[in-house]
Formats: sequence, structure tokens, C-alpha cells
Amino acid sequence: MPELRKDPIVGRWVIISTERSKRPSDFPHGSTNGRNGSVCVFCPGNEQLTPPEVLAYRNGGSVANANDWHVRVVPNKFPALKIEGSMGRRGEGLYDLMNGVGAHEVVIDSTDHERGVADLEPQQIEEFLWAYRDRVLDLSKDERFRYVLIFKNHGAEAGASLAHPHSQMIALPIVPLNVQEELRGALDYFTLKERCIFCDILDQDSRDRRRVVFENEGFLVISPFAPRFPFELWLLPKNHGSHFEHVASQEHRTMAHALKAALRALKLALADPPFNYIIHSAPLREAPSAHYHWHVEITPALTKVAGFEVGTGFYINPMPPEHAAEHLRQVLSDSEPAPIAASAS
Amino acid sequence: MPELRKDPIVGRWVIISTERSKRPSDFPHGSTNGRNGSVCVFCPGNEQLTPPEVLAYRNGGSVANANDWHVRVVPNKFPALKIEGSMGRRGEGLYDLMNGVGAHEVVIDSTDHERGVADLEPQQIEEFLWAYRDRVLDLSKDERFRYVLIFKNHGAEAGASLAHPHSQMIALPIVPLNVQEELRGALDYFTLKERCIFCDILDQDSRDRRRVVFENEGFLVISPFAPRFPFELWLLPKNHGSHFEHVASQEHRTMAHALKAALRALKLALADPPFNYIIHSAPLREAPSAHYHWHVEITPALTKVAGFEVGTGFYINPMPPEHAAEHLRQVLSDSEPAPIAASAS
Repeated sequence: MPELRKDPIVGRWVIISTERSKRPSDFPHGSTNGRNGSVCVFCPGNEQLTPPEVLAYRNGGSVANANDWHVRVVPNKFPALKIEGSMGRRGEGLYDLMNGVGAHEVVIDSTDHERGVADLEPQQIEEFLWAYRDRVLDLSKDERFRYVLIFKNHGAEAGASLAHPHSQMIALPIVPLNVQEELRGALDYFTLKERCIFCDILDQDSRDRRRVVFENEGFLVISPFAPRFPFELWLLPKNHGSHFEHVASQEHRTMAHALKAALRALKLALADPPFNYIIHSAPLREAPSAHYHWHVEITPALTKVAGFEVGTGFYINPMPPEHAAEHLRQVLSDSEPAPIAASAS
Repeated sequence: MPELRKDPIVGRWVIISTERSKRPSDFPHGSTNGRNGSVCVFCPGNEQLTPPEVLAYRNGGSVANANDWHVRVVPNKFPALKIEGSMGRRGEGLYDLMNGVGAHEVVIDSTDHERGVADLEPQQIEEFLWAYRDRVLDLSKDERFRYVLIFKNHGAEAGASLAHPHSQMIALPIVPLNVQEELRGALDYFTLKERCIFCDILDQDSRDRRRVVFENEGFLVISPFAPRFPFELWLLPKNHGSHFEHVASQEHRTMAHALKAALRALKLALADPPFNYIIHSAPLREAPSAHYHWHVEITPALTKVAGFEVGTGFYINPMPPEHAAEHLRQVLSDSEPAPIAASAS
């Protein structure tokens, strides 16, 4: 059974995943293309190679695990946490630990092995966003879980071990440390100002424009003021809301367009860089809050993140966000279909 | 001028280092061996290839920048921060920033281009530890600086861009976020228990033994209870003290032996892995505190740290620290010189 262990000084929970690889020589290096002898376990027709699906969207009423899906969600074959069992919270002297209970699922974004989010149709992106939401709502019924991390690793350098575009969801019995810090920071600001700090960022950056990469009626995509990484981007929903799983359906549509624009800009500017995105949302089943504002953070993996950054929380970023945003706006506008020339020939 | 910018939500300061590389194609990938056409800028005889030294240890009274040093400290040729100028703290709407004032120095560990800390004589390690201390004491005279980060990147995968073994020191006008969290966590524990949490860890782990890798009269080397990374190690001084720069001289000696043992164990077990170490110490010029305990954290760079870990503060570690410690103890004891066989031939 994996364990969740708590660092006694800073309160960080870590999964000690004893049933995954144990020897340094077992650690995966680089990625495969996900085809075992030319077979991709996520491609249509190979449904029997994954654990049975927990959700799939299909046209009409076909059977589970048939090959006519658009989006498919399956348990991770090598889960970091186990769905069965009690929490088993306990102490070991001054240390705290509990059983590694949780869920670890894979969202197969689309049937297309080759096309990442930057190249998918917005309708398809909207579909997997609905799958994210539906799975969060289902997982939140399990009272053991306090948080669901929704994230994507794209490219081997960003931790993707299979090439077929997919996302991951990890349901946890704890709230991750950085989410706690965000919640606390946002509450401190609200206590001082009686305003949401993310709403204030939206307001200031949409007037300032220098860090804006893309905007539509629902979302602002910015290079944040103090980015840890070159070309880091945030997707901020214009409507205040604390929980991703409670957004209105029209926001899935505008979010799909904004996510595609952001990832397309990165792909064009940086030759399909490895990246991660994470949906930041308030803990499950908490009441909607006026101070926290759900959003998406996209971090290209261009620089090596070493123990130094992790150990200090201190980042050196050679790319000012105003330059990054200008560059990304430019590649997006250059890639628009050229207007038809008025003069002949 | 580089800028220090503060994330308005979590309070993390980031260096936006405008005078370093600005284009993604400029980011260094991989390392060089530090020899520009077979010339290593850190090797003896090439002193004119670095900025003039700020400190060096020599036998007798030779002149600055001569080639007869054992340890040499020079300003970083490509500093992330600038030593000149005022703090210039200011706001930009809701955002906070200041000038990127600070110091960025390189400690050349020894004259030996090939031998890392694991292979140096303890006396030589002790020498560069003294250089760390002397530079911290000197930098702490500058009232603008609140913290000095002392760290080593070993290997290209851990961020080292030059092969000749060296350490780095960054003096900052702010306290890094993770240090703040450690200080707060340690204070919370002290408020509850009236004991130092690190002293309690020393006590519990030295009795428990399962996570102990090495011990001498001054230090305990452990694989911590909730490690973020496989084979993560902490060096804990047995004497309580909050500031590295205030340790007694006999602790430099025991620290040199403990650091060598820890890094030698990692080198033997993992085939000279890339790693980082960071000295965690209380902020400059603060009074010695009963709740904080300086120490060293060593993190091998065996797994990819991607935006996911950074964005969530949530780690999945497939190597239980008890197994890591057992393995490291074993390689250390196997590498001891074999006792001379009692029987002849």
C-alpha cells in the first residue's frame, strides 16, 4: 500500500509509492511513443489494453469499452494511489502518515494519436473539459477525497510517458501545499481589500495589456507579472468562481478556445515545447468563496528545474513576461489566415 | 537592471534577469566541460579568465589572483543580480517589485578539475566550507541583504554549466519563500512543544536508525521521513544552532566528513548522479533562535521535476527513505577498505 507522509516542518504531503519502481535503474528516462510494438494503448480499437473505462462520451448508446468514443477516462494502470481502503491516519513518533488512498485516472483527450491540444478542434477540447468536470463531480462524492488535481504533461521532458495526448486526474485525501498557500494568500488579500486578488489581476492586466496574450468573452490569457518560468501562462476566467467544476456551460466553450490559443501560441513560438498545465481550484465540497478564483497555469519546461528551485522556492527567469506576451501575441496574429489581397494576380 | 518581482498571491519573489539570455533558443542545454577550446576558466593558471577574486586561501602571503590558491571565490561572470544600486522598492498597481540588487559569487571548491566533493580529501572540503562562512560574514555586512543562499549544482542535469567543481552563493534582499515556510513551521512547532523540531527529528531518527545513512560526533545524515525525491538526504548538525555562519570550527571538520560520506554514498550507489545541495540557515543578522536549526539538504536529480511538482508542491516518490538509507549504508560499508586477512597468502 502506498503511503502519504507529511513533512513535519513545512506540512508538505508526499506520496511514497512503494508499489511503483523501487530501484534507481528502474526510473523511466525519456518517453516512448506509447506503441508497444506499434500498438498505442490509448488509440481506438485497443480498449482492452487499458483498465475498464470509468467514463466515455459516445454518439448514441453504444456499449462501454467499445471503440466509438470521443473522450475516454480510464484508471491509471500504474496508479500512485489506491482507491480501496481506509485513511488510516496515524503517527510514528513526531511523524504523521496515512494510507495512500486516492484515485488516479487518465483522460484520453481524443482518438487522435498525433494531435495535441494546440491542434485539436475547440469542440473536442470542450469535450475533454466536460470529462474533467464530470469526473471531479463523481470523485467528490467520495468523502475521503478533499482535492482533485487535474493536469497535463505534454512531452517527455514534462513527464509524459505515453505520446497519445492525455490528461491526468489525481484525487487526494489532502490539499496540496501550494494550493493551501494560494488559498491563504488570496484570503489575506481579501481580508485586507474585500476584493478577490485574481479579479484585481484581471482588471489591472486587461487595462495594462502588456502581459495579455489572448482574450475572449470568457477568459484572459496572460503571462503573469512574476512568472517562475519563461513563457509561463495563466488562463483566468473573467467570471469569478472558486470551483472549476461549477462553471457554466458557455465557459467550457470559451475556455476551450482560450486553451487552444495559449497552447497554439507556445507551439508556434517554441517549436512544440514540453509543457505542463494544472487546473487550480478550491477544495472539493467547500462552499463557493468570494476570495478564491479558479484558473489554469501553463508552464513550459524549457529550463531545467533542479533541486535548487525546488529547495528554495526561488526562481531566476531570463524572460520578462512583457516580452514573452509580445512574442506570443505576434505569432498568433502572424498565423491568422492572411486577408485575401484586393489586387489581382 | 534585473528586477525582483513578487507573486501577489503567494508572495514568492522571482528574479527577472533581463540581462541574461532572452530568447528560448538562447537557453543553454546540456553542459560543457568548462574548457573553452581546452581551457577551463576555473583551473589554476587561468585566473585572468574570471573576474578578480573576492577571496582565496593560499599558503603564506602570495598576491591576489596568483595561481597558488586552494579555494578561490570570484564574482559570477553572468550574475543574476547586480551588486550596485539601491533597492528601489516600488509598486505597479497591485504588484510589488524592486531592483535586482544582490551578489552572485562562485566558490571554486579546489584546484582539481576532475574530483567532486565525494572524492576530495576532508581537509579540502573543510577549506571551502570556511570560504562559504567567510563570504557569508562579509556579505552580511551589507544591510541591503537579508539572506545568502549557498548551494551546489553537480552535473548538467542538476543545472551545472561548468564541469570544474564549484559552489554558488547568492545574496538576496529578500528571504526565499521556502525558507520562510520552514521558519514558520519550526516556530509553530516550538510554540506548541517548546522544543526545536529538528532536535526532535535528530533524537527520533538516531534512536530509530532505519533512515540513518551516516553519523559522526557532529552530524547525522538521514534520508528524511517524507522525502520529495528518491535518495534525498539531509545533514543535521547535532549541536543546535540557527545560523551556518556561526558554527564552531570543530563542526566544519565533522561537517566535511559527513558531506563527503553522504555524497560518496550517492556516487557509489547511483553512478555519480547529478545532484543539488542547499544550506538552509536563518536570515542574516537575525538573533540566534531556539526554534530554527540550520542544515543541509541534498537532492539527487534522478527524476524529472516538471511543472506539476512545482505547481502543486506535491511529490510522488517511488523510493521509501528506509530502503534508500539501507542501500546507502550498505554501499558505504562495502567500500570500506577490507580488513587484512588474518591467514597468509
